[in-house]
Amino acid sequence: MKVLLIGGCGFVGSHVADALLDQGLKVRVLDLKPEAYRPPLHNVEYVFGDFGDSNTLFEALAGVDAVVHLASTTVPGTANLDPVADIKGNLISTVRLLGLLRNTGCRKFVYLSSGGTVYGIPQHDTVPETHQLKPINSYGIVKVAIENYLHMEQMLHGLSHVVLRASNPYGPRQGRLGVQGIIGTSLWKVVQGEPIEIWGDGSVIRDFVHVRDLAKLCVKALISDATGCFNAGSGTGASVNEIVEKIARTLEMKGLEPMTVTHTPGRAYDVPRIVLDITRAKECLGWTPQISLEEGIAESFEWVRNQISNS
Amino acid sequence: MKVLLIGGCGFVGSHVADALLDQGLKVRVLDLKPEAYRPPLHNVEYVFGDFGDSNTLFEALAGVDAVVHLASTTVPGTANLDPVADIKGNLISTVRLLGLLRNTGCRKFVYLSSGGTVYGIPQHDTVPETHQLKPINSYGIVKVAIENYLHMEQMLHGLSHVVLRASNPYGPRQGRLGVQGIIGTSLWKVVQGEPIEIWGDGSVIRDFVHVRDLAKLCVKALISDATGCFNAGSGTGASVNEIVEKIARTLEMKGLEPMTVTHTPGRAYDVPRIVLDITRAKECLGWTPQISLEEGIAESFEWVRNQISNS
Repeated sequence: MKVLLIGGCGFVGSHVADALLDQGLKVRVLDLKPEAYRPPLHNVEYVFGDFGDSNTLFEALAGVDAVVHLASTTVPGTANLDPVADIKGNLISTVRLLGLLRNTGCRKFVYLSSGGTVYGIPQHDTVPETHQLKPINSYGIVKVAIENYLHMEQMLHGLSHVVLRASNPYGPRQGRLGVQGIIGTSLWKVVQGEPIEIWGDGSVIRDFVHVRDLAKLCVKALISDATGCFNAGSGTGASVNEIVEKIARTLEMKGLEPMTVTHTPGRAYDVPRIVLDITRAKECLGWTPQISLEEGIAESFEWVRNQISNS
Repeated sequence: MKVLLIGGCGFVGSHVADALLDQGLKVRVLDLKPEAYRPPLHNVEYVFGDFGDSNTLFEALAGVDAVVHLASTTVPGTANLDPVADIKGNLISTVRLLGLLRNTGCRKFVYLSSGGTVYGIPQHDTVPETHQLKPINSYGIVKVAIENYLHMEQMLHGLSHVVLRASNPYGPRQGRLGVQGIIGTSLWKVVQGEPIEIWGDGSVIRDFVHVRDLAKLCVKALISDATGCFNAGSGTGASVNEIVEKIARTLEMKGLEPMTVTHTPGRAYDVPRIVLDITRAKECLGWTPQISLEEGIAESFEWVRNQISNS
């Protein structure tokens, strides 16, 4: 099976590329630019370009049996600044991709959605896939619309698809830019001796999933006959304050100086708590996350330290 | 209160204009072109142009206290042919409108959504507003996305809004083009002595609401403090075959020749049955539909007959 991996040079994408190769699959990556933290992989075919460009897509789709679509032109914290760009860059591009797929032999599609935004304000302690979809930011609204177009494509044209509603992935190769996730951002700051910045009082609870666990789930989704939506988290919550504590403990265990923490006001679009119920992925896809938050944070810390000492 | 009525020259819009004027409100209509079946109304201010054009919108919004948005560049039966045009013409235009509104004094918004498409395949005999939103056509997907952006606008910027999920409106001034509804289309054919065309076996059940009842609900939604989503139907179902029978009875009562009926294959995107639970609109907005299907069909038949005899 040959897989087109859209967004395969990003943080999650680089790990999904590894997992697809581990599974013995042929991989073609479509992304705007090469990976930030590794040289190109020898056994991966790269196409560089915009997945919103039909000519690029057409070239990238040739001979492909399945698509894993991880690309996003926005992140939750920035999509509201320009919802029209969010709609054009993500929704319209993906709808065009689905139209192109109809004329190819590709009948399997895995899409990375967002468990942290599609549900809006959770009505339960842990949120199952059947929870109402009431997103309160543009990122989540666009993800829901894409999920719906995938559902329609399956109903009308038989495209077998899996939607993975990921929680907060973290781990090695997470960028330093501060738009993608508290763990990565904080570790880059700590290693560089800068203070960690926390929005609000740190009581906000999220579900953090190690990026290698998520990548393994992507592969399971791809090779399984199951279809539909699956939550892709750890199934347990951790507050921002707990994350800060775990980072502090990592420093302590390595005999390093403690970091400092600063507080800035909370964001209107942050929901107070979101933890995903991952029963469905466990039962239908035989997947369980393996890497604990402690291990993951320690590993990620070492990875950031290596990046900085090698730069 | 001055109301901008977007799409005010269309079938539903023309009746909402009447109802707003009856309520003593000032009305400005924005639409692409004048009404098809009536001369311009003396006490309505008209702006002709595309609601997707920001300059036109900016002009139309001056001095307005509330917006009733009924415009759609697509209908359920055609949106799938070009989903990208559906997204651009409806979703992006409406998101731009919401952005423009933030800088005006307008803080009330009534939006006409689609009870027949947002729910997808109904899981209950009558569908309440809390039913899952799982649309299976582009029209419904775009409506859900617009509803979500309205919800976000209320959460983040305080825009008070009502979404009316209309079922199948029918009545005088419904066009003859055959894309908008079985009752209007069939009556135009019958009056002209042409056979009525039915998709499938005629067992498909829909919820038909008289357009004047729907228009009254629009006004109630506008002047009420209630917000959120409301089903806007009759609350009862009628099969296509029952509609055909009622039209036949109308002909019989008027001593006219019976019509002929032809059958064409069913459409993949038609759900077998959809009837809306309208309890919420009754309780929160004090609205009950008044016009029975028999009365409404007889009235609409006379209206079509007058159009043809006057043309």
